[in-house]
Amino acid sequence: MSDHHPASGLDDAVHQRVRLGVLAILAEVRDADFAYLRDALQVTDGNLSRHLQTLEQSGHVAVRKGFEGRRPRTWIAATDAGRQALETELGALRTLIDRVDRAGAGG
Amino acid sequence: MSDHHPASGLDDAVHQRVRLGVLAILAEVRDADFAYLRDALQVTDGNLSRHLQTLEQSGHVAVRKGFEGRRPRTWIAATDAGRQALETELGALRTLIDRVDRAGAGG
Repeated sequence: MSDHHPASGLDDAVHQRVRLGVLAILAEVRDADFAYLRDALQVTDGNLSRHLQTLEQSGHVAVRKGFEGRRPRTWIAATDAGRQALETELGALRTLIDRVDRAGAGG
Repeated sequence: MSDHHPASGLDDAVHQRVRLGVLAILAEVRDADFAYLRDALQVTDGNLSRHLQTLEQSGHVAVRKGFEGRRPRTWIAATDAGRQALETELGALRTLIDRVDRAGAGG
């Protein structure tokens, strides 16, 4: 048996922990500000910035800078491509989890 | 609302794509040889070697070298800690997937 395991279909662009978290949160709240994502994912400003830049470059999120009163804020939203990539990722993860569960090692 | 997202509980030691794949396969087949893992995960020898070394150093897998006839083979098995870490990872992923599904963006 040498079929490909579902893990081989995971795309690092979306699977990486922080980036997966960003896209999962943006599926819930649509538009999140930088501080919200940072606190929810418990990462540093620098770490989040780096991953948002990667997601923006790959077309998975759109970043919009604006003001709330005089306070500068950065808003992040998933693009259609980002939502689609999250669906693909979650589909591969579901398949992976089902296989482990069927093997009797699952909870 | 600033609760922590389940993605903040993912551990890169186990979440990383290739390492997650290795541990998921070892939940199915218990003892796998190097070539089987490489083909199932569609990675290069070097890439798999690097990730197996990481998993061995963190105590998640045990690597055993032996022979089948005259042919050298490398066998890999998950340790108890590796199986436990996989369960923790899959639990966090299930929670993440459920949240996205509840938000109505899930399949």
